[in-house]
Amino acid sequence: MPDSKLLLIPLGGLGEFGMNCMALRYGDDIIVIDAGMMFPEAELLGVDIVTPDFTYLEQNREHVRALVLTHGHEDHIGGVPFLLSQMNLPVYGTPFTLALVERRLEEHDLLKTAQLHQVKPLERVSIGPFSIEFVHVTHSIVSAVALAITTPLGVIIHTGDFKVDPTPTDNELFDLHTLAAYGKRGVLLLLSDSTNVDRPGYTESERAVRPRLEDLFARSERRLVISCFSSSIHRLQQILDLAAEYGRKVAFLGRSMLSTTEISHDLGLLSIPDNILLRPQDIMSMAPSKTCVVMSGTQGEPMSALSRAAVDNHKNVSIEAGDTVVLSSRIIPGNEKPIYRMINHLAKRGADIVYGHMNPPIHVSGHASSEELKLVLNLVRPRYFMPIHGEYRQLARHAALAQHLRHQGLEDTFVLETGETLEIDRQGARRAGRVTVGRVCIDSGSLDDIVEDIVIRDRRHLSEDGFVLPIIAINKHTGKSENLPEIVSRGFVSLEEGADLMKEARMVVAKTLETSTHEERTDWGVMQEKIRADLKRFLTKQTSRRPLIMPVILEV
Amino acid sequence: MPDSKLLLIPLGGLGEFGMNCMALRYGDDIIVIDAGMMFPEAELLGVDIVTPDFTYLEQNREHVRALVLTHGHEDHIGGVPFLLSQMNLPVYGTPFTLALVERRLEEHDLLKTAQLHQVKPLERVSIGPFSIEFVHVTHSIVSAVALAITTPLGVIIHTGDFKVDPTPTDNELFDLHTLAAYGKRGVLLLLSDSTNVDRPGYTESERAVRPRLEDLFARSERRLVISCFSSSIHRLQQILDLAAEYGRKVAFLGRSMLSTTEISHDLGLLSIPDNILLRPQDIMSMAPSKTCVVMSGTQGEPMSALSRAAVDNHKNVSIEAGDTVVLSSRIIPGNEKPIYRMINHLAKRGADIVYGHMNPPIHVSGHASSEELKLVLNLVRPRYFMPIHGEYRQLARHAALAQHLRHQGLEDTFVLETGETLEIDRQGARRAGRVTVGRVCIDSGSLDDIVEDIVIRDRRHLSEDGFVLPIIAINKHTGKSENLPEIVSRGFVSLEEGADLMKEARMVVAKTLETSTHEERTDWGVMQEKIRADLKRFLTKQTSRRPLIMPVILEV
Repeated sequence: MPDSKLLLIPLGGLGEFGMNCMALRYGDDIIVIDAGMMFPEAELLGVDIVTPDFTYLEQNREHVRALVLTHGHEDHIGGVPFLLSQMNLPVYGTPFTLALVERRLEEHDLLKTAQLHQVKPLERVSIGPFSIEFVHVTHSIVSAVALAITTPLGVIIHTGDFKVDPTPTDNELFDLHTLAAYGKRGVLLLLSDSTNVDRPGYTESERAVRPRLEDLFARSERRLVISCFSSSIHRLQQILDLAAEYGRKVAFLGRSMLSTTEISHDLGLLSIPDNILLRPQDIMSMAPSKTCVVMSGTQGEPMSALSRAAVDNHKNVSIEAGDTVVLSSRIIPGNEKPIYRMINHLAKRGADIVYGHMNPPIHVSGHASSEELKLVLNLVRPRYFMPIHGEYRQLARHAALAQHLRHQGLEDTFVLETGETLEIDRQGARRAGRVTVGRVCIDSGSLDDIVEDIVIRDRRHLSEDGFVLPIIAINKHTGKSENLPEIVSRGFVSLEEGADLMKEARMVVAKTLETSTHEERTDWGVMQEKIRADLKRFLTKQTSRRPLIMPVILEV
Repeated sequence: MPDSKLLLIPLGGLGEFGMNCMALRYGDDIIVIDAGMMFPEAELLGVDIVTPDFTYLEQNREHVRALVLTHGHEDHIGGVPFLLSQMNLPVYGTPFTLALVERRLEEHDLLKTAQLHQVKPLERVSIGPFSIEFVHVTHSIVSAVALAITTPLGVIIHTGDFKVDPTPTDNELFDLHTLAAYGKRGVLLLLSDSTNVDRPGYTESERAVRPRLEDLFARSERRLVISCFSSSIHRLQQILDLAAEYGRKVAFLGRSMLSTTEISHDLGLLSIPDNILLRPQDIMSMAPSKTCVVMSGTQGEPMSALSRAAVDNHKNVSIEAGDTVVLSSRIIPGNEKPIYRMINHLAKRGADIVYGHMNPPIHVSGHASSEELKLVLNLVRPRYFMPIHGEYRQLARHAALAQHLRHQGLEDTFVLETGETLEIDRQGARRAGRVTVGRVCIDSGSLDDIVEDIVIRDRRHLSEDGFVLPIIAINKHTGKSENLPEIVSRGFVSLEEGADLMKEARMVVAKTLETSTHEERTDWGVMQEKIRADLKRFLTKQTSRRPLIMPVILEV
C-alpha cells in the first residue's frame, strides 16, 4: 500500500486527566497503545471506574492487531479488561506491567483466554506494518518503557510516562542513548508526556526522598506508619532497606499493597531483607519502636487501610499517641477534603503526621518537569510534535515549549484532544476528522437486563429532567411538621444555579402545608398529591422543566 | 464580682476552616469577636453560605454587649448580617472593615438600624469589664487588627489573621512594639492564627509579587487581564501603579471589584492615578496593548467575570489569542476542578495563562508561616496559649510549636474545637463544658438556564438504573439517629419486587450506622460515604444494577 496514510487516533488522555489510550493506524492495520482508566469525579456518585469508549476499535474490529502497554499504572492499564472483553487482542508489555494486568484480568475471569506477550527493553516486535522497539524510561513505577515505532512513513516515538531520573534507586538509567540514536536518524513524530509541564526545572530523583525517610526512621520513638502508592516499588524498596538498617519489622497492610509487593518480589524487582516481614495480626503485640507499618490509602479513600485506622476501625492496627504517620505521596487535586479529614482524625489520636511539601521531600513526582521535557525534545528532534497525557492547558504549554525546535527541523506541533485525529502521508501531517469517543462509567459488577416497563418509564422521565424530592419530617407525637421542608434534587438544575430556586421551592412546600385544612393534614396521601401538584406548577413556571417529583413524608 | 470567671467560647473556626467566631465572657458580660461565614462543602446540596449557630448568644441575649471585628474577610464578617438580625449589637471595627460590613448589611436591609463604631489602631474601647486596644497587624486585607483585651483576670491577645510583613506596600508596619509591651507586662492568654502553621520559614512580603507583575507589564504585547481577590487592596494598588508606569488604562470588572475599589479609594486606602480608569464598555475599543483588565473570579466561580470571559460570555471583554491572563491568587483546596476547567477554556482561546507557584511569585499568602508564629509567641510570652483559626491538624501543630515557651512561663496549651470552652479563674485555666454550636446553612444566589455537565451526567446515570435515597433523620440535640432509616427509590426495581429488597436495604443502612465508631458518626461526610459504599455493595449483589445512591442526612 504505497499510498497509505498514518492516522493517530487519541481515544483518551488528551485534554483530560487519565484513561490514556491512543490508536495508531496505517492502512488496514491498527495498534492500540495503552488502555487506561480514570477515577471518577466526586460528582459521579455510584461510579467506580471510567474507561474510554472503545467504539472506534469495535467498528474496526477486524483491523485491530494488538494492544501495547507502556507501564502498569491504572491510567494506562485500568481499561484493559474492558477492552479485552470486547475483543481478545494480543497484549504486549514488560513482565511487571503484564503481572499487574493479569491480576485485573483474573478479577474479570479473562485471564485464561488472554494472549499476553512479555517484552523487554531493546527488544523489537513486528506487528503488521509496525516495528516496535521498547525503550527503558524512569518513572515512579518500575519497568516503564517508551515506544519507538517504525512505520512505512517514518519513526514515531511515544514516551509513555517518564521522568529523566539521573540516579534511580535500581540504577536502571533512562535510555537516553537509544532515543538519541533515533533522533539522529530522524523521527517523524514525537508524542510526549505533558503531566508536569507546568513545573520549572527538573523533577527530583526518587533517591531524594531517602534523607527524609531516614530521618524519620532515626527519630521516631514509637510505631512508624508509612502510606504510599502500592505500585511505588522504588519507594517500598527504600522503606524496606531503611527498616532493615534501623531494626524495624515491616508489615504490609491492604490488598493492593500485598499483591504488588508479592509480584515485584517474584520478578526480582523488590528485594526483601531476611526475617523482616511481620504478619498484620502480630503488629500490636510487637514493640512499637520495632515496627514499621506500610499501608495504602494516601488519598483518604474511605474504605482504605489508613482511613480505617484513622477512625480506629482497622482490625490489625491502632494508631496511638506518639506514633508517626507518614504520607509519602502527593495530594491528588480534588482529594484534599477526604485527605485532610483523615489527617484530622489521626491528629486527634495523638499521632505526629508528616505530609505535604517539605525539604528534603517526603515524596517526588514520577513525571518530567519542563527542563527534562526539553531534553527529550532536543534528543528526539522530531519533524512533528504532539503533546499527550494532560489537560488542554498542559498540552498547549508543552507545544509552546517545543517552539525553539523550529530552527532544528520541527515543522509543526498539534494540540489535539481525545477524538480529534492526525493524518500523516508523504506530503506531511495535518488535522483530520473526528472519531467517536467518550467516557464509559462502570460500577464493579455486571448488568442484568430484565427491567420492567414502569421502571423504564421512570428512568426516561429521570433522564429528561432529573428528580426533585421534598422531604417533610413529621413529629410522630404531634403529627406536625416542625422544620422547614428539605429538598434534594439531582439531574434537574446545577447546584450553584439552583440554590435560589430550591429555597423558594421549600417555601412553596411549607406554604402548602400551612394552608391545608386539618382534615387534609391527617391524610398524608392527600398531602403528597397536593405538594406534588403545587411544586410541579411552581417548577414548571420557573424553569419550563418537569422533573420527577416525589414527596417523602418522614415520621420522626 | 471578685470571683467571676473568664470563659472562652469558640462558636466557629476551631477545628474547621472558616466561619470564625469567638465569644468571651466574664461574669454576666459577653463580647463576640468576629462573625464569619464559610463556603459549604460539596456535600451540602444547594447551600451557598454557612454561618455559625448563634444559639449560645441567643440564650444569653441580655448579656451580649458587642461584636468586635478584626478585619473584613468573609470568614470573619460574612455572618454579621445573620447575627445582627438576631440581636442588634453595637459593632466595632476599623473604617474599612465596617465599610465592607455596611455593604452586606445593606443587602439585608439592616443598615439603618445598625450601630457601627469606627475604631483605629491604638484606640481603646471599654465594654463592660473589658478594655480593648486595637493593634495594627499586616495581612492580605488592609486595616486588619489584633485585639489586646484587658480583663479583671489579665490580658488576652487575639491576633485575628496576620502575617508579619517586614515591607508592606503601604508602609504600615505590623505593630510589634505594642505586642512586645503587653508581653513584657504579662499576658494571660494568647489566641493566634494557625492557618499557615504547616509552612516552614517566613511568608513572603506582599511586595514580593511586584517583580513578577512588573515583568508581565513589561513583556505583554496585548491585553493584560489580571484576576485577584477583590479585597486585596495592596495587590490592586501595585497593579494600578504598574499600569500607570507602563501606560495602560485599567478597567475593573465585577460587582465586588467595583465596590471594594470604590470603598478603599473613598477611605484613602487606594490611590488611583489620574485618568487611568477605563469604563468596561470601552475595553474592546481601546488598543489591547494599552489596556489592563482587573476582574474577580480566581476560584473559577461559575458566574464570575473571569469564568464568563473564559467561555466568551462576558458583555464587556473577549479574551483573544495572545492576551495574557494572570491569576494572582492561590487555588483554594477543593476548587481545582472549576479553576482548571476555566484555565483550559482560556488556553483554547489562545491566551497565555500565568498561574500557580513560580519564582518570583505571582501571589503571596496573607497568613504567618511557622517562624512568624514563633516570633509572635515569643513577643507575647503568654501564660496560656490557645491556637485558633484552623482544622484540628493545624491547631495541634501550632500548640506543638509553642512548647519551647515552657521555659518562659507558658503553663499550658489548649487545643479546643468549636463548642468546647476554656475557663479561667484566679487558680488558672482549664477545659470546661460544651455549649451548643453548629452550622447554619443559608441558601442564596441566582438561577440561570444553562444546564451544566454534571446535571446531564446525573440524568444519564439516573436513566440507567434510577435512584435510591437512604434518608437518615438525626436528632439535632443528641446527634443520634433514632428511627430506622427510610429508603425511597424510583426507576430502580418495581414496587412489588422491590418491597422486600428495600426492607433489607434499610437494615443494611441501620447496620452501617450501628457498627460505626463514635468518631465516624461525628463526621457525616464519612458516614455518607460508608452508607453509600455498603448499600451499593448490597444492591449490586442482589440486583446487578447500579442506581444513583445519595444518602440524605436530615437534622430534625
